Amino acid sequence: MYTITPLEKGLENVQGFYCGATNVGMRTNSEDGDVAFIRSEVPSDISAVFTQNKFQAAPIKHFQKYPKNFQTDFVLVNAKNANAMTGEKGVEDIDTLISKLTAKIDVLNPVMASTGVIGYRLPLEKIATAFDTLDFSGKNSDQAARAIMTTDSFKKELAYRVELENEESFHIAAICKGAGMINPAMATMLCFIATDAAVPKEDMDALLAGSTERSFNRISVDGDTSTNDTVLLLANKTSGNYHKEAFKEALEKIMFELAMMILKDGEGANKLVTFEVTGARTEEEARTASVALSNSLLVKTALFGEDPNWGRIASTIGASGIACDDEKLVIHYDDLLIYDAAHRELDKEREKRAYEIMKQASFKVTCDVGMGEGSYTSYGCDLSYEYVKINAEYRT
Amino acid sequence: MYTITPLEKGLENVQGFYCGATNVGMRTNSEDGDVAFIRSEVPSDISAVFTQNKFQAAPIKHFQKYPKNFQTDFVLVNAKNANAMTGEKGVEDIDTLISKLTAKIDVLNPVMASTGVIGYRLPLEKIATAFDTLDFSGKNSDQAARAIMTTDSFKKELAYRVELENEESFHIAAICKGAGMINPAMATMLCFIATDAAVPKEDMDALLAGSTERSFNRISVDGDTSTNDTVLLLANKTSGNYHKEAFKEALEKIMFELAMMILKDGEGANKLVTFEVTGARTEEEARTASVALSNSLLVKTALFGEDPNWGRIASTIGASGIACDDEKLVIHYDDLLIYDAAHRELDKEREKRAYEIMKQASFKVTCDVGMGEGSYTSYGCDLSYEYVKINAEYRT
Repeated sequence: MYTITPLEKGLENVQGFYCGATNVGMRTNSEDGDVAFIRSEVPSDISAVFTQNKFQAAPIKHFQKYPKNFQTDFVLVNAKNANAMTGEKGVEDIDTLISKLTAKIDVLNPVMASTGVIGYRLPLEKIATAFDTLDFSGKNSDQAARAIMTTDSFKKELAYRVELENEESFHIAAICKGAGMINPAMATMLCFIATDAAVPKEDMDALLAGSTERSFNRISVDGDTSTNDTVLLLANKTSGNYHKEAFKEALEKIMFELAMMILKDGEGANKLVTFEVTGARTEEEARTASVALSNSLLVKTALFGEDPNWGRIASTIGASGIACDDEKLVIHYDDLLIYDAAHRELDKEREKRAYEIMKQASFKVTCDVGMGEGSYTSYGCDLSYEYVKINAEYRT
Repeated sequence: MYTITPLEKGLENVQGFYCGATNVGMRTNSEDGDVAFIRSEVPSDISAVFTQNKFQAAPIKHFQKYPKNFQTDFVLVNAKNANAMTGEKGVEDIDTLISKLTAKIDVLNPVMASTGVIGYRLPLEKIATAFDTLDFSGKNSDQAARAIMTTDSFKKELAYRVELENEESFHIAAICKGAGMINPAMATMLCFIATDAAVPKEDMDALLAGSTERSFNRISVDGDTSTNDTVLLLANKTSGNYHKEAFKEALEKIMFELAMMILKDGEGANKLVTFEVTGARTEEEARTASVALSNSLLVKTALFGEDPNWGRIASTIGASGIACDDEKLVIHYDDLLIYDAAHRELDKEREKRAYEIMKQASFKVTCDVGMGEGSYTSYGCDLSYEYVKINAEYRT
């Protein structure tokens, strides 16, 4: 028996973690910081999931140079510059920064994460000025969550307390950034999760991979995958308490809720739509169709236009290449039957109800392919004028 | 030796073909027709390429009920209703229409093509009124080309005369519709090609398939594939003349130019961009990367914003999953070196030149992956506010 309770604020809830941020002048358009840190007072185990993009950014290459199962007590993050496509020099730059950091504070195997524009070297001198102003003993999760934002329109942080029996408890909290370029193969996102649970390293790796598959890998904003996507889980074990099922549930909960926050913050998006495909021959075919739906431009623009045009849903399933048959397909919007072989044309009454469902901030499209037992759910959003505006003007 | 000369007007240039259109009241927002026909005075061989969408529209299923290598002398086309996802009834409706047609004119194995909204039965009585008003002995390609348009902003028709030695000649002409939903696996497009060349049926099949691969299958507007995509080639052989190389060149020319017209008419598109990928391990890997580039929303919006952000080009290649290495990648915009391992950051001078290239109505992005000999070229366009507007409001 255990209970999971949401807490106010973020990373400061987790025992033995410090965090904060400062503005070194890379972010010129707001008061928010552009360099953030997360520090543990004792060495932490760390698990990571990185982008599947072949051009991994320098911080990811740098991380992978540490020995397997290394411990760390420091994560440095910067916004505005991705340190991607910067070659071996980009990795050397991180070592240079670390040597400047260690001149100010004693840290163990520090890791770095970056987000921003691709193809420019980090401004090392500028970033190093942060080491004079950051409060390494502060606990300011709000500051850190704001500092890692790029096109995000709101900060993303969550925290939970998990109460076990015998008055034992532990905490898990996270900050996250991500808005556009989200794909069912990770996202332009950074996510830092800290816990004081006494979770064994092997559980960390397995549970982080599983939770990523059921959260960040199921959301789509625009079908692109970035060079920098990173999810880190740090566990300093300071609570001394652990319960595998409870930890798993809390981790899945925090990652799924952060994924939904990213989707709600999809660049210019107004609607969150769940695409459940059932009855496919295999889970893989269900995944193929579900992901095709959440990525389709024609589906996304129909969602934005609140047009109950099920033809685009059906056409996208047909185009995805999975086994299907228009005599067997059944489509629902929420609980409204929108298509089956006996109800092909939308009558006025059903069209009116479909329109009412589509006006909601979130709803569910269910497609039963009727060919087998495979099912998969992914999550998408609409595509608006605002998306085009944000992405046409991103760098300028 | 042969010469290929462009002609004014369209299908009327081809001996023994008649065409035209009328408005039966399905298209209510313009003077253009909504039902068109193409007729040959003698039976023609016909070759076809259809959509790869699993939900093929009723006219495609109807076509496939004819025996292999059947001949026809009549093609009926309607706009505003796709007759897709209409089940067996949709196919029966075509037979009903044909019986009404044959009451007015003697035709051999007539075929049909439709474009428009998915999921509604054809208005048979309305369409049949066309058989009273169509001039089956007229030659009005302009009328026919306009009648098959949906979101097209201009009609698409082309014609060529091919002159051989000994004063022999033949003609090839086509009308075509297509604007959005274009994908490197066909498109929401209909294309009707007529020739009086004495081309053997086996050449027709092979040359049509090859030309489709190098034209309509290489363009992308939004990455979707429709239920109705159809390319038909009709040959009535009335010129009595044929030269395989000349016919192949003329067919490829007409199909490639029509594909470029569709791309220029990409919904809301302003720029035509060629994506050439060279040096991939295999042609298949080059195709994967090239198609990923022409489909990427982030690339498309950067093109619209005229932002020389090569990071999105590189990131898309990395995300496509092909073998690549940032030390070996070389990117050009036209003849301007935009990225290689020795020139990672864009200096002011190159950024200015890149911006000038991107301001053009068309330009070329070349990515040499540096891993092998595989190459592939596809063609894409930018994504503008207008695309979202057109597709959000399509049905309303």
